[in-house]
Amino acid sequence: MRVGIDVGGTTVKVGYIENKKFIYDYEIDTKGGSLFDKVFENIKNFSKEKNIKIDFIGIGVPGHVENNYITRLPNIGLSDFDISLCAKKYFNDDIEIKSSNDANVAALGEAIYAKIKDRVFMITLGTGVGGGFVKNYKIVEGAHYSVGEIGHIVIDNKHKYKCTCGLKGCLETVSSATGIKRLAYEYQNQFDKTLIDFTNLSAKEVCDKAKLKDELALKVINEACDNLGRAMAMISLAVDPNVFFIGGGVAKCGEFLIELIKYYYRKYAHFAVKDTVIMQAALGNKAGMFGASYLWDENYREEA
Amino acid sequence: MRVGIDVGGTTVKVGYIENKKFIYDYEIDTKGGSLFDKVFENIKNFSKEKNIKIDFIGIGVPGHVENNYITRLPNIGLSDFDISLCAKKYFNDDIEIKSSNDANVAALGEAIYAKIKDRVFMITLGTGVGGGFVKNYKIVEGAHYSVGEIGHIVIDNKHKYKCTCGLKGCLETVSSATGIKRLAYEYQNQFDKTLIDFTNLSAKEVCDKAKLKDELALKVINEACDNLGRAMAMISLAVDPNVFFIGGGVAKCGEFLIELIKYYYRKYAHFAVKDTVIMQAALGNKAGMFGASYLWDENYREEA
Repeated sequence: MRVGIDVGGTTVKVGYIENKKFIYDYEIDTKGGSLFDKVFENIKNFSKEKNIKIDFIGIGVPGHVENNYITRLPNIGLSDFDISLCAKKYFNDDIEIKSSNDANVAALGEAIYAKIKDRVFMITLGTGVGGGFVKNYKIVEGAHYSVGEIGHIVIDNKHKYKCTCGLKGCLETVSSATGIKRLAYEYQNQFDKTLIDFTNLSAKEVCDKAKLKDELALKVINEACDNLGRAMAMISLAVDPNVFFIGGGVAKCGEFLIELIKYYYRKYAHFAVKDTVIMQAALGNKAGMFGASYLWDENYREEA
Repeated sequence: MRVGIDVGGTTVKVGYIENKKFIYDYEIDTKGGSLFDKVFENIKNFSKEKNIKIDFIGIGVPGHVENNYITRLPNIGLSDFDISLCAKKYFNDDIEIKSSNDANVAALGEAIYAKIKDRVFMITLGTGVGGGFVKNYKIVEGAHYSVGEIGHIVIDNKHKYKCTCGLKGCLETVSSATGIKRLAYEYQNQFDKTLIDFTNLSAKEVCDKAKLKDELALKVINEACDNLGRAMAMISLAVDPNVFFIGGGVAKCGEFLIELIKYYYRKYAHFAVKDTVIMQAALGNKAGMFGASYLWDENYREEA
């Protein structure tokens, strides 16, 4: 059975997948202690208990990883960490371990699930903005493992908020969940009344109130989608995908959001790429586990 | 022998290449009459006269071409034109004909000449701004043959000049030779004196006077390179090349220009891609012919 692991900031999702179906999946709380030790020990015990034969373990991590070597994982506080070495403590050598960036594995998961062999560009709108590019069911990583790191495209010329990466005006400072909340606070005083509940502020709250035509909410969501659409139009002239998938927590706003993104994409897109397909990702928060479980060798992946 | 053809606005360059060396090369004036008929007839006569056995003819065209079918060639005034069909009138079927966008073939030429098998992104700064992406000595064309069409990235938020493509603020409205001249005119009145000779205005003239520290020229060149550097930083987060080559007429300004582009690239680049190599393309105006002659099958290309 394939095991797919999606490492997040506070929890880790683990899925056991066979013939493209989740047989088991659960979350592990990893606060405190060594994250990967906890996860591997859990999988070892769980698979023994359920009598599961593991063929492969794939891992998506929210940061920079090169051949199972984590160079930088800011949200977890890990760096210079060898995943393979840690796994050796728990598993035999015949279980292969592979890892990649979390947005990359989500992209792979969506491409395999949707059976799109062509050029698939996945964008994840969550705490940050991530991205991954998959072609022929293979992740394209690039010269510096940076293909799809589009959250740090310098796109916003208006506010130029400082980004966690050190630059100013990055896409994720305006189009992520965090960015949407920030814009809502920034414009709050420009409107006498709003339906937005600031005591429970979230990207979803802003989006829900935009659907009800709240003016503040509409201004914020339009600005987030305008910047994202323009960035996507640029991406099309660099990698020219067949399909853009929009995923991550913010994508839960659904068709309302997707239609706005399409509108702004087409506003800025060169004529040759105006018709690129833009659609909501299908797997939701299971994309990472699913994709990670398919990081294994190419022949195996062909079954997709 | 390989024949490489570089189709331009007013002239067409033809090169005869063997073992990576130009044996012959010349230009054909193609004003009036059917461009491809003129070119093919010329090659037929020339090769007969010099007793050349042609193996392959490759063609770079300034526009959109899909499998030898030209959909749109605005500067030539051609559209819906089948190159293969035209070639049949002059050559036997055993001579294969292949074509691609002019910036794509230039990228291929530079990659093969420099022997860089990795990810090569070529940027051509001429009347417009073009680009091409080559990996493993193969042109990457994309879902809509638009990989590398970076001249139409909407990057300029300041002037928002109207572009020939219909959009506003495209990269080529500020960073091409035309864009540099436009900026020089726009800022002319802000400076009491300048070394720029406006009666012979060209991008090279502006660049030459910037080297002499002329303030107007420096303002213009900095703005052109700032926009280009920012666009390149975005491209790095989409395709993540190992190398950027800068070519086209404007690149003749040499190291002075390349250093400025590097400066602005690094200003906007995400930390993981800050060290991407940026260098002046080596082949000058021969890149198109050279690259086109290598459009042939992959095994042949492996010799590179």
